[in-house]
Amino acid sequence: MRRTLPDIETFVQGIRSADRALLGQAITLVESTREDRQVMARNIIAQLHADLPDNTFRIAVTGAPGAGKSTFIEALGMHLVAQGKRVAVLAIDPSSAMSGGSILGDKTRMEQLSATEMAFIRPSPSGDSLGGVARKTREAMVLVEAAGFDTVIVETVGVGQSEIAAQRMTDLFLLLLLPGAGDELQGIKRGIVEMADLLVVNKSDGDRVKLANQARAHYLNATHLLPPKPSGWLPEVLACSALENTGIEAVWQRMEAYQAHIRANGWLLENRRQQARYWLEDTLDAGLKDLFYQHPEVKSRLAALEPEVLSGKISAIDAAMQVLAAFRKGM
Amino acid sequence: MRRTLPDIETFVQGIRSADRALLGQAITLVESTREDRQVMARNIIAQLHADLPDNTFRIAVTGAPGAGKSTFIEALGMHLVAQGKRVAVLAIDPSSAMSGGSILGDKTRMEQLSATEMAFIRPSPSGDSLGGVARKTREAMVLVEAAGFDTVIVETVGVGQSEIAAQRMTDLFLLLLLPGAGDELQGIKRGIVEMADLLVVNKSDGDRVKLANQARAHYLNATHLLPPKPSGWLPEVLACSALENTGIEAVWQRMEAYQAHIRANGWLLENRRQQARYWLEDTLDAGLKDLFYQHPEVKSRLAALEPEVLSGKISAIDAAMQVLAAFRKGM
Repeated sequence: MRRTLPDIETFVQGIRSADRALLGQAITLVESTREDRQVMARNIIAQLHADLPDNTFRIAVTGAPGAGKSTFIEALGMHLVAQGKRVAVLAIDPSSAMSGGSILGDKTRMEQLSATEMAFIRPSPSGDSLGGVARKTREAMVLVEAAGFDTVIVETVGVGQSEIAAQRMTDLFLLLLLPGAGDELQGIKRGIVEMADLLVVNKSDGDRVKLANQARAHYLNATHLLPPKPSGWLPEVLACSALENTGIEAVWQRMEAYQAHIRANGWLLENRRQQARYWLEDTLDAGLKDLFYQHPEVKSRLAALEPEVLSGKISAIDAAMQVLAAFRKGM
Repeated sequence: MRRTLPDIETFVQGIRSADRALLGQAITLVESTREDRQVMARNIIAQLHADLPDNTFRIAVTGAPGAGKSTFIEALGMHLVAQGKRVAVLAIDPSSAMSGGSILGDKTRMEQLSATEMAFIRPSPSGDSLGGVARKTREAMVLVEAAGFDTVIVETVGVGQSEIAAQRMTDLFLLLLLPGAGDELQGIKRGIVEMADLLVVNKSDGDRVKLANQARAHYLNATHLLPPKPSGWLPEVLACSALENTGIEAVWQRMEAYQAHIRANGWLLENRRQQARYWLEDTLDAGLKDLFYQHPEVKSRLAALEPEVLSGKISAIDAAMQVLAAFRKGM
């Protein structure tokens, strides 16, 4: 256990030269709840941000439990590594606070990918809110891109809110499906199918090829009914078997076609601009709430007024205005 | 057009003696975007809040367009008025900013109810956000209850988010349904059926009685699959025809049974406590954001930094920390 942390310059240089240990430590700083560590993480990110590579590709992969996300990411990741890509896998799992990380917590689920130097796998940060978890993942993304990982895969657990967060930090949204079953049986939340740029029916192998084709036809139909996307891309539906490693290359080809499309028409940059605006607002809101609720005047006024509001003695708006006035005066 | 407003004492006394004109004017103050009017509204609410009646009953009524919400509220309202109840009808319609109010905007849709002194009907406030619209409706609720309206009906348009807001300010959640069609065809958002304490199949008349009974059986089945509610109440499914005024009394009887149940087991008060906490937080968040984004230092720092974030020159977290520091220093 090292007691003294490397200094910021060491982190910055180390990450730029793809030092995995320093990269991992820097992400740990991002995830820390300690104020001084967070300040350090921000300084590292600020320095690295100035010259990030602009050729990175960010992919969200989601799907209900059982759709085979880990196997799929392993197969896709190994395919990319074989082509000379450097692949980082991050995760957003709002349940990780309780469970200690239900996805990517166990790296052995991506045995080959976690063994290669060309890939970097990091379990979901924990946190008391999805917002906090997602912000940390987005900051980790800056670090892995600065370390030269050109393809970033963000895995989510399929509970709805974390998919929206994942979409807000990626260029392509991939929904992994099971053969046969419809949306509801698959546990896919309403609105997720609409978000997908690529829908991939996994486990299209053995007896399930026919069911996979049925699912493909069903979702192809469904996507035709959707309103057009701002990217101008028509969602595509593919089938593959991550287990048998069939169809993976075709999936990647369509991902590349999508990437070429959104680079050519400017959507990749425009989307990243909109995403940056969202994360700025999101980070401001979170920081503002911290500032407010940790303020001693706010704490004491709120402690005094909240019981009065709960018992109905005073109105919520009355109490809120008093607390806000105390905050304004006390700053 | 009166140029000078009555003073606060006149408003407070007038509302306590059920002066409809002053009540209407006070709600207009609540809905005003002018700071001085809002301060006045808050003062009026603060004075009235101290001794609000505790025998009021708050009912949310929702349903897809075409379910007959206005006709149902008219029939139920007239039934209550005949029993000596005083009924206020408010609305939450987040689209009212654009449309000028798509529900309750036209009082003639509740012709009888709007003609009686025993009822008070107010269209949805407008606003640039659902949060703002909902907060105004909740403040208007304090005013109508202070004016002696013991039964408050909050109508929503069935778009999902406004139902959640309505549930957070009422004791009972009623979902109005059409005969025959399933959830999806009725345009009912996922999660709304789960929120209902009473499900009422309207338009159970003429040829539609059989279809209404089928719908009733379907939803009865669906509610049996739902997890138990914290109120300890098992949702019930009824049928009525608001148009022919049949079944309305039975609906009200079950509403009264529900009310007796949640008064006896303490849920009415516990729920209102939780609601008060929610509205306190909600009002604090909204006020805090106003304070922040209208601060001159914040405006100027943000105007300078936002383009840098959008172009990717600096990170969102870096910019956010700079703006927050400027806010802290500048207050």
